Amino acid sequence: MTPAPLDPVALAQGVRAGQRRALARAITLIESTRADHRAAAEALLSELMPHTGGAARVGITGVPGAGKSTFIESFGLHVLAQGGRPAVLAVDPSSPRTGGSILGDKTRMEELSRDPRAFIRPSPSGCTLGGVARRTREAMLVCEAAGFDVIVVETVGVGQSETAVADMVDMFLLVLVPGGGDELQGIKKGIVELADAVIVNKADGDLAAAAARAARDYASALHLLAAPGDGWQVPVLTCSALTRTGIDSVWQTVLRHRDSQGASGALAARRAAQAHAWMWNEISETLLQSLRDDGRIAARLPTLEQAVADGRLAPGAAARELVALFRGEG
Amino acid sequence: MTPAPLDPVALAQGVRAGQRRALARAITLIESTRADHRAAAEALLSELMPHTGGAARVGITGVPGAGKSTFIESFGLHVLAQGGRPAVLAVDPSSPRTGGSILGDKTRMEELSRDPRAFIRPSPSGCTLGGVARRTREAMLVCEAAGFDVIVVETVGVGQSETAVADMVDMFLLVLVPGGGDELQGIKKGIVELADAVIVNKADGDLAAAAARAARDYASALHLLAAPGDGWQVPVLTCSALTRTGIDSVWQTVLRHRDSQGASGALAARRAAQAHAWMWNEISETLLQSLRDDGRIAARLPTLEQAVADGRLAPGAAARELVALFRGEG
Repeated sequence: MTPAPLDPVALAQGVRAGQRRALARAITLIESTRADHRAAAEALLSELMPHTGGAARVGITGVPGAGKSTFIESFGLHVLAQGGRPAVLAVDPSSPRTGGSILGDKTRMEELSRDPRAFIRPSPSGCTLGGVARRTREAMLVCEAAGFDVIVVETVGVGQSETAVADMVDMFLLVLVPGGGDELQGIKKGIVELADAVIVNKADGDLAAAAARAARDYASALHLLAAPGDGWQVPVLTCSALTRTGIDSVWQTVLRHRDSQGASGALAARRAAQAHAWMWNEISETLLQSLRDDGRIAARLPTLEQAVADGRLAPGAAARELVALFRGEG
Repeated sequence: MTPAPLDPVALAQGVRAGQRRALARAITLIESTRADHRAAAEALLSELMPHTGGAARVGITGVPGAGKSTFIESFGLHVLAQGGRPAVLAVDPSSPRTGGSILGDKTRMEELSRDPRAFIRPSPSGCTLGGVARRTREAMLVCEAAGFDVIVVETVGVGQSETAVADMVDMFLLVLVPGGGDELQGIKKGIVELADAVIVNKADGDLAAAAARAARDYASALHLLAAPGDGWQVPVLTCSALTRTGIDSVWQTVLRHRDSQGASGALAARRAAQAHAWMWNEISETLLQSLRDDGRIAARLPTLEQAVADGRLAPGAAARELVALFRGEG
């Protein structure tokens, strides 16, 4: 299929008017790696930027088996019931999806995906986490311009995707399950300290008591180990995504975080710092990609990397040789 | 004073022969920002690289008031008593020192600094953490080539210096004090999860019981919250740097970590990954510095940074404009 010629201004108008087709096309455009698409995507984003920033940006990660998809569906349905408009995005650098489809994750959240007021988009594909994260960040902006006021960004927990997601949201939720002290098997070092709230899911049936106990234990451990940061004490909540109990507490916590961080200026500071870091990351990644794409570098890199890994060559010396080669001084 | 012409090969021989003066000159050379010194430093490191890697690299951070300097002195004296040769380096990006001096921190560790088998070097000065960390990493290599077999790298806890230190050592120690649950006031988010061992200092006199209690609480919180990584369960120890009790347990823990991580291959993997990341960080920092030094960039940057901070311009668009300018396409 040959797509219609891209008119970023018309596409932006469609996005802002709430046209689903325009929204899907806009995100597909942003996910494209074609140079002409990239230029159109830039123009589209320029049109949309003044209309972004209005959503609560919520990141969600969890241990395997925590019931993250069910939790996100329950949470999204609760947002809808409160009159909100949720969009669900994902960062999964391992995803083999080849772009363009809006199927995929939808099957995991059937009820939410059937509601025309909600929007669910699986992870863009891409070989690098940086590329996937960039497109998800931009998709988040497009969703905001389209009027979605709660953006949920889900991480699959591969590589450094949790950090990438925490770096693009206002609030980061960690979903755990009640268990015997081994709840964090499968979660990587450093993730707990990214969390702005911890949620113990599956607090239903036989597990209800265990969930309450786990929540108490986590709360006390977090109180002891988590450094007080921006005046926000990380709460530990229980819920059951299955029976949809406790979901309102999570939602109220999101609102309370938004209010307190908004009033203190912490939210604006966090977003400004994220945008600044994002810009410099993009600069850095673009420059590094140009360096890697350089034929002279590609020929020399394996030898130098091996020498550095073996401890035969100082990393600084290898770096300077490569940069000199890249800048045509080698 | 005009220094003698630099002969990297002769200097490397002096370092390896254990000459204090050569060691101090070598590190001063590495810390220099002069271009000709940098070239000589590269040549020096090339000479020394085959003789590096033999030390236990131990990073130490702590909450303010934890008695870190006293702890490092007691630890260093214990290493000496065991027949080891300790070197103490520091990463302090806020240090206003203007290079070359080997005074400074020595006054904090009088007994250790008087011992000719030990070596203490304050933090290099530098405006960026990256620059300070690079020089400390290279100083660590020089110390290893000079025969020091325990390198202690201290962080002052400014900016991201803990992460920088954790990224250059084999084992990272977090020094805390017994207290009323607010022990982590002053320590930043994410630091606890960097620790390979937690040490509760000041376990003496009136505080002995509180220290034991704090250690138990930390151990249980860490067990609950810390993700199992490389098969190493983070131990929590008590000691008194003042009365020098419990220091041998810390030393035995360092040896045990070294043995277990060495046997499993985790140590070699950690060092190879660190060297690889260090090389790419240096490449990235060098390229970003060239970009910042570009006159066209310097003229345009403030406007773009402000627009990004205000949410008027997408970070990606700003990045692409700056890179295009830098590469002469703007």
